[in-house]
Amino acid sequence: MLTEKELRTQAAAAVTAVHETTPLAGSITNFVTIDFVANAQLAVGGSAAMVYLPDEGTALAIAGQSMYINVGTLLPVHERTVPAAMVQLHRSAKPWVLDPVAVGLGELRTKLLSTARNCPPAIIRGNASEIIALAGLWGLNGGSAMSQVRGVDSTDTVRTALDAAVSLARFTGGAVAVSGAEDLITDGTCALYCNGGSPMMERITGCGCSLGGVIAVYAAVVSPLIAAFCGTQLII
Amino acid sequence: MLTEKELRTQAAAAVTAVHETTPLAGSITNFVTIDFVANAQLAVGGSAAMVYLPDEGTALAIAGQSMYINVGTLLPVHERTVPAAMVQLHRSAKPWVLDPVAVGLGELRTKLLSTARNCPPAIIRGNASEIIALAGLWGLNGGSAMSQVRGVDSTDTVRTALDAAVSLARFTGGAVAVSGAEDLITDGTCALYCNGGSPMMERITGCGCSLGGVIAVYAAVVSPLIAAFCGTQLII
Amino acid sequence: MLTEKELRTQAAAAVTAVHETTPLAGSITNFVTIDFVANAQLAVGGSAAMVYLPDEGTALAIAGQSMYINVGTLLPVHERTVPAAMVQLHRSAKPWVLDPVAVGLGELRTKLLSTARNCPPAIIRGNASEIIALAGLWGLNGGSAMSQVRGVDSTDTVRTALDAAVSLARFTGGAVAVSGAEDLITDGTCALYCNGGSPMMERITGCGCSLGGVIAVYAAVVSPLIAAFCGTQLII
Repeated sequence: MLTEKELRTQAAAAVTAVHETTPLAGSITNFVTIDFVANAQLAVGGSAAMVYLPDEGTALAIAGQSMYINVGTLLPVHERTVPAAMVQLHRSAKPWVLDPVAVGLGELRTKLLSTARNCPPAIIRGNASEIIALAGLWGLNGGSAMSQVRGVDSTDTVRTALDAAVSLARFTGGAVAVSGAEDLITDGTCALYCNGGSPMMERITGCGCSLGGVIAVYAAVVSPLIAAFCGTQLII
Repeated sequence: MLTEKELRTQAAAAVTAVHETTPLAGSITNFVTIDFVANAQLAVGGSAAMVYLPDEGTALAIAGQSMYINVGTLLPVHERTVPAAMVQLHRSAKPWVLDPVAVGLGELRTKLLSTARNCPPAIIRGNASEIIALAGLWGLNGGSAMSQVRGVDSTDTVRTALDAAVSLARFTGGAVAVSGAEDLITDGTCALYCNGGSPMMERITGCGCSLGGVIAVYAAVVSPLIAAFCGTQLII
Repeated sequence: MLTEKELRTQAAAAVTAVHETTPLAGSITNFVTIDFVANAQLAVGGSAAMVYLPDEGTALAIAGQSMYINVGTLLPVHERTVPAAMVQLHRSAKPWVLDPVAVGLGELRTKLLSTARNCPPAIIRGNASEIIALAGLWGLNGGSAMSQVRGVDSTDTVRTALDAAVSLARFTGGAVAVSGAEDLITDGTCALYCNGGSPMMERITGCGCSLGGVIAVYAAVVSPLIAAFCGTQLII
């Protein structure tokens, strides 16, 4: 278990490492907040590249140091691109961030999120309802297929997602970041609650997505838990 | 016919209702201004969700209280998604806003806008040229297939679109909002002219689209005419 | 060869001509910076319209006075739309700007950029690595297929791209704009270096794309070299 001092030391080292190495964290992400994600990644010192075609997803998984996959605004081409990238990332043992936005809406989204179970992401970032629903989809403790994701909004509080988040983190061996009025980060062993966000953030589209993209940048240089912590502390 | 006092009272009630119920107004909209639409909807107190796949369009038409359909930046998938959503909205008797952007450009756009005639929107929002051209496409009085929509810009003034707007409103039984230097709103019986916009708004992409998205939020809680009025008063 | 005075006079005349004629410069461009491109084009006095479907690309090539084609965030539909637009622009002898973003990533991008060789753009705008790689792809002097385009970032300095830029400009008979810490503009005969940019611009996605879109607006009213100069002076 990390002490607070170790946490701070590792986070500071990660920030420095990103500035020094400009890691490339490619994205397959939604059209609503795609520029916000890119700009947030650039702002923290990373490099961004967004793709949709299958061979480009695979190439970016190989070329980059990490990746951000967000299942918002799906098109037919995502059916091939997302699994191809996930499989390549898994093969290359590259860290990647999964953003299960609007889990439960539509067949393709469910299919892609089910596939992710077989090539687990280093970090999962979502709101409370998405985390509970994903744990439900993956058949894990704390999950519920009945979690009501209303469009892209959460109808659950962050703390009600603790069991689901811990289950997901233990299953993936990585970390989970639950976004909300306060943010929860867990690696399945320790749980951190981060304050400092604003209720206004729910009224601005892409705060969660850009957090996911930034976590992907940090995941290129540090452990999933610290990457999630760095992103959350910077964005909130 | 509404008195000004009734108009103001109903508009104030609609603003309150949106704040209290956070209606979900899903969108199928163009990629240029998709974040502006979402942020405008969130800013007035609504909930936003954007989709492109056919089953997601249908699901969102069912899950939401209203919808915004903008035919900009079409992809092949729109051929199935847009009609599926329109039909579902019609069946569910849910209010939706049609934004006939760039009507006349391309075969698919014409096909989708012709389909809309069979499952009429509660509100149509466009610039003067788009409103005249849509009335022409639907064979209504005041319309003209010859209306010159130049790309996405209007080459007609708002007042020249009055007949077309009235015809469209009477045909749909809803309301029409014509955007320009001044804005015209009509339900086919009364016509309101709203001032307060800025010539700068023509130089910022998405002012019209975000207005359409906001009207969709209000349409979830109030009549088409008042919804169009609320959106127009807030955006200009 | 232009004198500095002639350059300034022609640039001033181009700015006036754009304000007076509001040229329509349609775009086929990436989803990351599509709103930035549109807003930049509107800000300088042009008219913008973005499309993805093949018949719309062709129609816009006919309806507009110039066009901007950026090969970022490709979808399957680009395989038909981009060549159709290029061929139409070539037939109509309309000026267009090519932005070879991320050249080398993926099969479709390479195919589209190879096609562009047969219907040459009036202006090519890219970072140093993209310009060197494109010259390499087209088999021109100064080019290198080995130029390392890292995602969408340049790993070469602007001055190292001089030979490639000159070769491309001579091949197309147009102009080339190389973006970076300083900007290089050449028509194959003279080479201008423009200062005034900021290192911050590398940290904001779309500065290059919006420059390309703006150059397309000016290309509607003036020679490729002056169009590239106008855009560069306005954006940096």
